[in-house]
Amino acid sequence: MKLVRYGEAGSERPGVIGADGKIRDLSAHVADIGGAALDPRSLADLSRIDPATLPPVDGSPRIGPCVTGTGKFICIGLNYSDHAAETGATVPPEPIIFMKATSAIVGPNDDLLIPRGSEKTDWEVELGIVIGRQAKYVSEAEALDYVAGYCVVHDVSERAFQTERSGQWTKGKSCDTFGPTGPWLVTEDEVPDPQKLKMWLTVNGEFMQDGSTRTMVFGASYLVSYLSQFMSLLPGDIISTGTPPGVGMGMKPPRYLKAGDVVELGIEGLGSQRQQVRADG
Amino acid sequence: MKLVRYGEAGSERPGVIGADGKIRDLSAHVADIGGAALDPRSLADLSRIDPATLPPVDGSPRIGPCVTGTGKFICIGLNYSDHAAETGATVPPEPIIFMKATSAIVGPNDDLLIPRGSEKTDWEVELGIVIGRQAKYVSEAEALDYVAGYCVVHDVSERAFQTERSGQWTKGKSCDTFGPTGPWLVTEDEVPDPQKLKMWLTVNGEFMQDGSTRTMVFGASYLVSYLSQFMSLLPGDIISTGTPPGVGMGMKPPRYLKAGDVVELGIEGLGSQRQQVRADG
Repeated sequence: MKLVRYGEAGSERPGVIGADGKIRDLSAHVADIGGAALDPRSLADLSRIDPATLPPVDGSPRIGPCVTGTGKFICIGLNYSDHAAETGATVPPEPIIFMKATSAIVGPNDDLLIPRGSEKTDWEVELGIVIGRQAKYVSEAEALDYVAGYCVVHDVSERAFQTERSGQWTKGKSCDTFGPTGPWLVTEDEVPDPQKLKMWLTVNGEFMQDGSTRTMVFGASYLVSYLSQFMSLLPGDIISTGTPPGVGMGMKPPRYLKAGDVVELGIEGLGSQRQQVRADG
Repeated sequence: MKLVRYGEAGSERPGVIGADGKIRDLSAHVADIGGAALDPRSLADLSRIDPATLPPVDGSPRIGPCVTGTGKFICIGLNYSDHAAETGATVPPEPIIFMKATSAIVGPNDDLLIPRGSEKTDWEVELGIVIGRQAKYVSEAEALDYVAGYCVVHDVSERAFQTERSGQWTKGKSCDTFGPTGPWLVTEDEVPDPQKLKMWLTVNGEFMQDGSTRTMVFGASYLVSYLSQFMSLLPGDIISTGTPPGVGMGMKPPRYLKAGDVVELGIEGLGSQRQQVRADG
């Protein structure tokens, strides 16, 4: 299934993408795409509904983040060997974890705001893993049983805030609108191998990132197991798994986003995002 | 007011501490201590209720975290000059920000679990700031208008996870039970100067930390203003403002928590916490 949340920010309704690519309303069957609805048993129940029997959604509504109630937005740093190289870093012996603020989460096509004082707002297309049920001390073999599905995440990053404003990366990762998520939560059964997905990102139509999850250092099942040794992962938590090469800070000279730019990004089978860049208030 | 949440984990009820020190039930007036209830106008309404007119709560119920719906649990690193010195670090030119997982939040007297594989679980008494309404790009002069109140936070830290397991501190700060919060949310009007509060922590009755918020490098109003330049602060967000000297890793030789230990900690006017330490399953 491709689950979706549509409507104005803060009042999204749950939907599912039908065979015709259009949204069908799921609100008679589930209150929202989050919490207990993400449990694999709940998702199995939903999958037995024929989308053609659901009310079609007219027009082209705004698409919201594909999951609600995210308690943790966990990111993995330097998780593609070729991206590590372009930033001048080496691949770490264990996954690097940092957090984005959950208040950074927006819909996949919402405007991307350049924060006040920013000169180095950069792009990163990433595979997002959405947790379906509580995972603690789980093995790598069973890890994907705890996953609801996958989505596209744009891990927008302000490089000066991240690395030039005193320790820890959170500061450059958490600005409002820095976490476009979606368009769809594609359930785990429809992604037979999360380590074989092409991914891409363009700025004003020019290809910047053109990679594959195949070159990820620590894969999805490893990451879920690894993180669960440090903390309970809960339904709706998102793990953003790092970015392939082609970010702006790796270019010579570096290149960053400015008001008026348009960023488009996507992952094979998970849909695409499009953001208009503008200055924040 | 001293606001409190009491009852079993996940089904706490709102209360207020009466003149006799006992809990009075507030649930006829507010659904919970979180979200819109933290808005200064809502808190002003609650403050007009005489606790003596509210139903007394019998017995000694469990006390939960003093606020619910926390979206961000933001911590400030090395924010006491003397603590920075004991860890071998220098005071940073700007606040160091990192995040604790919100899933680490527990009640002030709940058991503190040593995670599997941990040998360096350490203590840190901290002043917590609870946000009352959305703050973005606010000045230092107006920052405290966005604060609902203050509480005690225990920023429990696993030093090996934090510093020896590849980059970024989140990994050693986010384990389950690593964020005891409360007992009370003391509203901002009852804390005339958050930079003049004594704070202390004991392990098995022995004083380990005995400091004051007076030696904080970046104070409460500065921190709220500073953070709001990077992200929207939302009602229920907690800012834990760093710890004074006396943590285990700063001792010669270092000293860490073990199953069977009892940690007690408190801040002047904000109440105290007591945790029994035990190994996690």
